Amino acid sequence: MTNTLLILPGDGIGPEVMAEVTRIIDWFGDKRGLAFDVTEDLVGGAAYDVHGVPLSDATMAKAQEVDAVLLGAVGGPKYDDLDFSVKPERGLLRLRKEMDLYANLRPAQCFDALADFSSLKRDVVSGLDIMIVRELTSGIYFGEPRGIIEEGGQRVGINTQRYTEAEIDRVARSAFELARKRGNKVCSMEKANVMESGILWREVVQRVHDADYPDVELSHMYADAGGMQLCRWPKQFDVIVTDNLFGDLLSDVAAMLTGSLGMLPSASLGAPMENGRPKALYEPVHGSAPDIAGQGKANPCACVLSFAMALRYSFDQGEEATRLEQAVEKVLADGVRTADLMQAEGGTPATTAQMGDAILAALDAS
Amino acid sequence: MTNTLLILPGDGIGPEVMAEVTRIIDWFGDKRGLAFDVTEDLVGGAAYDVHGVPLSDATMAKAQEVDAVLLGAVGGPKYDDLDFSVKPERGLLRLRKEMDLYANLRPAQCFDALADFSSLKRDVVSGLDIMIVRELTSGIYFGEPRGIIEEGGQRVGINTQRYTEAEIDRVARSAFELARKRGNKVCSMEKANVMESGILWREVVQRVHDADYPDVELSHMYADAGGMQLCRWPKQFDVIVTDNLFGDLLSDVAAMLTGSLGMLPSASLGAPMENGRPKALYEPVHGSAPDIAGQGKANPCACVLSFAMALRYSFDQGEEATRLEQAVEKVLADGVRTADLMQAEGGTPATTAQMGDAILAALDAS
Ligand SMILES: CC(C)[C@H](C(=O)O)[C@@H](O)C(=O)O
Ligand SMILES: CC(C)[C@H](C(=O)O)[C@@H](O)C(=O)O
Repeated sequence: MTNTLLILPGDGIGPEVMAEVTRIIDWFGDKRGLAFDVTEDLVGGAAYDVHGVPLSDATMAKAQEVDAVLLGAVGGPKYDDLDFSVKPERGLLRLRKEMDLYANLRPAQCFDALADFSSLKRDVVSGLDIMIVRELTSGIYFGEPRGIIEEGGQRVGINTQRYTEAEIDRVARSAFELARKRGNKVCSMEKANVMESGILWREVVQRVHDADYPDVELSHMYADAGGMQLCRWPKQFDVIVTDNLFGDLLSDVAAMLTGSLGMLPSASLGAPMENGRPKALYEPVHGSAPDIAGQGKANPCACVLSFAMALRYSFDQGEEATRLEQAVEKVLADGVRTADLMQAEGGTPATTAQMGDAILAALDAS
Repeated sequence: MTNTLLILPGDGIGPEVMAEVTRIIDWFGDKRGLAFDVTEDLVGGAAYDVHGVPLSDATMAKAQEVDAVLLGAVGGPKYDDLDFSVKPERGLLRLRKEMDLYANLRPAQCFDALADFSSLKRDVVSGLDIMIVRELTSGIYFGEPRGIIEEGGQRVGINTQRYTEAEIDRVARSAFELARKRGNKVCSMEKANVMESGILWREVVQRVHDADYPDVELSHMYADAGGMQLCRWPKQFDVIVTDNLFGDLLSDVAAMLTGSLGMLPSASLGAPMENGRPKALYEPVHGSAPDIAGQGKANPCACVLSFAMALRYSFDQGEEATRLEQAVEKVLADGVRTADLMQAEGGTPATTAQMGDAILAALDAS
């Protein structure tokens, strides 16, 4: 079976961090006999500049064919005034929607070497390892009707949250499956006290649990209380499953808590394709960071670890994924630090490429 | 002018904490010549038990007439299986909606004596004092259509986010007015990158600013980034203005960060009545805490400070409000601690009533 990859570096620091990932992909081909058939293409502002849209139909078609898409980041001030329909983000949202990537896996992990970077106390975050499973193809991000309409002489902004039983069912299953390979605990978050879509969410998650995952410990929490508990004592959680909008907010809060924001990867998975592999897109949690783009300052680790997730979830190479993750952890433990990781206690300053070098060296030694 | 107050203790710890507030209200009548005409009534589960609804029409009518409503808390496990339409929360939501209390003021303040209780590092939170202005009568909490419908053989949960220009305009004004009396900075949060209602939100806030508050510093942030920034360095904010749902989540996160959750009050304000006073409801940010209800363990400070907000915003008694706030701070500095405030470094344990005693003593000494 060939391993096909579509690489979409995107905007801002996307191309820089992706350049390091490309070297690592090559390393796996050369040294581990794990060859990838890689195509590169445009997304976001970069695509808009060339095609007038943030994702061309041709790129969309390619994304549907490959085993995995690896995305850098999209967006930047240059595109702030573009019409909503062609903003860089729409490229990303189109990929998620048309590939039907309903399960967004966002690990919030605190790297031991970085625990002091958190604004939280060390004992609250050290060793933290939670997995947020965010529904990614429905909810208020995509529901109709939507738009800005004229009504009674003024404009009204409208968005619709819609969840079907089937949509909730499938993402709940993803969460329970993951939990079984981890701490065997799922906490589901919604606002069932004020939203009917939250009532249905809670009911379906409970039903899936009772029918097929009674061995997994399940709890329910209102999303506002969930946000509080994440800040108070995040280690109480193992897997959190929640909708698209709450997941957007809660996963960002969780990511920031770890102090490891520049380190965090994500995977967005859909249904299995003909070859048994799931539709998949991998991307760092951080954004395009236009303020530091092009200066060799960006931390490539989140994008590198996104590729590690690809190894695990798309190519069934769990051992090689662990090898790469351990290489990154070793480099951190050795004190190699891109600008975002430099704080009082020192470390060895590294450019984006030097961080890449260090990871490759750690891989060689592995 | 008489000062009329409707007291709705509600459920769980509501009645206990409200009992202490009642003593403090009496103190202001006796010692400061500030008499209040107080009526007490039922809300939430307590109302459901008697009337079969979480807020009777008679109570609703009374709330419309008084200068200020003071609410304890609603909800409890006993009511978990009630139909959505008569859940305790619906009583609170009906008050907010029918009184048209569009501006929910939620101070997130770190009490110096409690800074070590935060899960965040001391320097990140000590001295923190931000004000979240949450839109409270619209958005996805109230938008139609809503419900659980049948479609193509399965159920679909639906809620609608709707914001009119007028709704955004008025809450933006509340935020700018408040900012002028504080740090003169407003940060508005939405998801204009994915929601059209967010685009309208951003546009109207900017327009109100440019037309009538150009002296106030205004910035915009996506709500997910806002959640991150609250966790990273909350002191960058002065006033935050945001919609009903984001406000629910972000204000809870901000409250938890302070480490002072049991201490935080809130005010919900509407348009001026005939006597010039705004429609107003005051309530603690914490919930009904059924696990400790009836044991004399609850911390009455948040409810006491909610009454201080009533003094300031409804009765134009800023100096008396400050007197009460300082009394609470003194008691904390003296080490008086209800159970929620007891941690390693000691302090003097106090019951709910003993905390009330201590505040009254501090008032006497003021
Ligand atoms: C860029 C933006 C559209 C996106 C989202 O809101 O989903 C981002 O915040 C994310 O979390 O991936
Ligand atoms: C009790 C509940 C309905 C309420 C809300 O969601 O608004 C609460 O969380 C709050 O923040 O006041």
